Amino acid sequence: MTDFQVWAGNIQERMEQVLDSILPAAEISPRRLHAAMRYAAMGGGKRVRALLAYAAGDLCDTRPEIVEAAAAAVELIHAYSLVHDDMPCMDDDDLRRGKPSCHRQYDDATALLVGDALQTLAFQTLSSPGLHPNAARQLEMVQLLTIASGSRGMAGGQAIDLESVGKALNQTELEAMHIHKTGALIRAAALLGAYGAEQLDSDKMRAVDVYAQSIGLAFQVVDDILDAEADTATLGKTAGKDAHANKPTYVTILGLKRAKELAAELHANALSALKDYGDQAQRLTQLAQYITHRSF
Amino acid sequence: MTDFQVWAGNIQERMEQVLDSILPAAEISPRRLHAAMRYAAMGGGKRVRALLAYAAGDLCDTRPEIVEAAAAAVELIHAYSLVHDDMPCMDDDDLRRGKPSCHRQYDDATALLVGDALQTLAFQTLSSPGLHPNAARQLEMVQLLTIASGSRGMAGGQAIDLESVGKALNQTELEAMHIHKTGALIRAAALLGAYGAEQLDSDKMRAVDVYAQSIGLAFQVVDDILDAEADTATLGKTAGKDAHANKPTYVTILGLKRAKELAAELHANALSALKDYGDQAQRLTQLAQYITHRSF
Repeated sequence: MTDFQVWAGNIQERMEQVLDSILPAAEISPRRLHAAMRYAAMGGGKRVRALLAYAAGDLCDTRPEIVEAAAAAVELIHAYSLVHDDMPCMDDDDLRRGKPSCHRQYDDATALLVGDALQTLAFQTLSSPGLHPNAARQLEMVQLLTIASGSRGMAGGQAIDLESVGKALNQTELEAMHIHKTGALIRAAALLGAYGAEQLDSDKMRAVDVYAQSIGLAFQVVDDILDAEADTATLGKTAGKDAHANKPTYVTILGLKRAKELAAELHANALSALKDYGDQAQRLTQLAQYITHRSF
Repeated sequence: MTDFQVWAGNIQERMEQVLDSILPAAEISPRRLHAAMRYAAMGGGKRVRALLAYAAGDLCDTRPEIVEAAAAAVELIHAYSLVHDDMPCMDDDDLRRGKPSCHRQYDDATALLVGDALQTLAFQTLSSPGLHPNAARQLEMVQLLTIASGSRGMAGGQAIDLESVGKALNQTELEAMHIHKTGALIRAAALLGAYGAEQLDSDKMRAVDVYAQSIGLAFQVVDDILDAEADTATLGKTAGKDAHANKPTYVTILGLKRAKELAAELHANALSALKDYGDQAQRLTQLAQYITHRSF
């Protein structure tokens, strides 16, 4: 294993522990809800958002317990969005990470409440009193996550996505959708890792922001490429589903070759934002490589 | 109009203005989502939770802009819970406050996102930097609202409610459900009004807490009585629906006469918590009267 794989593996493992301690035990009433929340939030995913928070925290010397809480809060928001996104009235997906999606494993009403309660738990985690020595800064971190998650961030991106089904979006419109739908939370993950530092370095914050915006889009372009190329078995969700649903993707708009070039350009943009930081930006650099080369 | 009615009317009007300024304009993209959020959160209801925040703020000399933000945040949480609660996979209600419920006016996917985004907006409102001169206190207010809203508060109460359909609950179990489902947020509304004060008075906080817990249960008992007695026209929702759905209510468990006695007892408990405060507690006293005597 490479040094990066060890680092990422440790964080993925740590995230499971942190989420395990944050999520109410399945023995606590209401049990079915708590069991379903754990089912939806734990044991899965590459935790790309958590890795971004840690990597940005690494650049900015953010204290581990603050990075940890920020990463967990972002992963909880992400988990809630997946649960609601999979529901019959949205994407109606039966599989998530190779397992039955939450509403298939439980039921629609429970999945609705699971998403609701995971969102609340994210803000509970990030607003935990005393987490950051500077309470005003911590409030700003909460505020940042609310803006990234709400109707002008992630949830708004979902709404734009709904409106776009069957429409012929151009690249600019597609980008606007993804900047909200996935980009906002990815950006928030990196910014929170940086913003949790005791001493803010505005140059580093700006670098992390540029990096995160490029890598957030690259993430989506790569997702579309994977979706177009992969089969159900390797991806753990119904492959080609977006194309079938007549949803615009980077591949349908640009073609596979140009989409791959775009991913490479965004990767280069992300790296150039880090050029002043050398080894300090090692994890962000490795993560950019990982995100843009997941399996091609 | 009585002095109380003027006071309440002013707050109800002020809440509309505050929500109007907090909610993104319907002209801002994604427009359908923003229009639906406004449809769901504005123009309705007695704003009992906002009134509680203001009345507790009145007892504790909390600054108006802090009470206002706390009241709006609680009303946004309440609005989100109604939107999700009305959805087909939950109570499947076509009417809310005499208008088509959000998913009937728009669609299920939009209603799902509306609830999600209203919840986020609640925390965005309460975490607005600089709202409270004491940032640590403001963080604690955010934390309080998350706990009241999440899986061990309101959302948990909804889950217990789901599990209780068709079951023969006793009064203790019914109470446990309502303490979560409606009580937690009502209590949070009053506590936030008190907790926003610059100088905390622990005796007053305790009094508000006891008051709010009694009045929160009274509110639900009265709701069950109204539901049993009212017809669709006056209530603006499908009357008797809970009883039809074989959901336990205070009236089905205790009978109408005993339920009314219980409401009166809870009212008396709430008042006795305020006994040391005389005129300072005038609004809380009037509100207790209003809540327990809405229409009988």
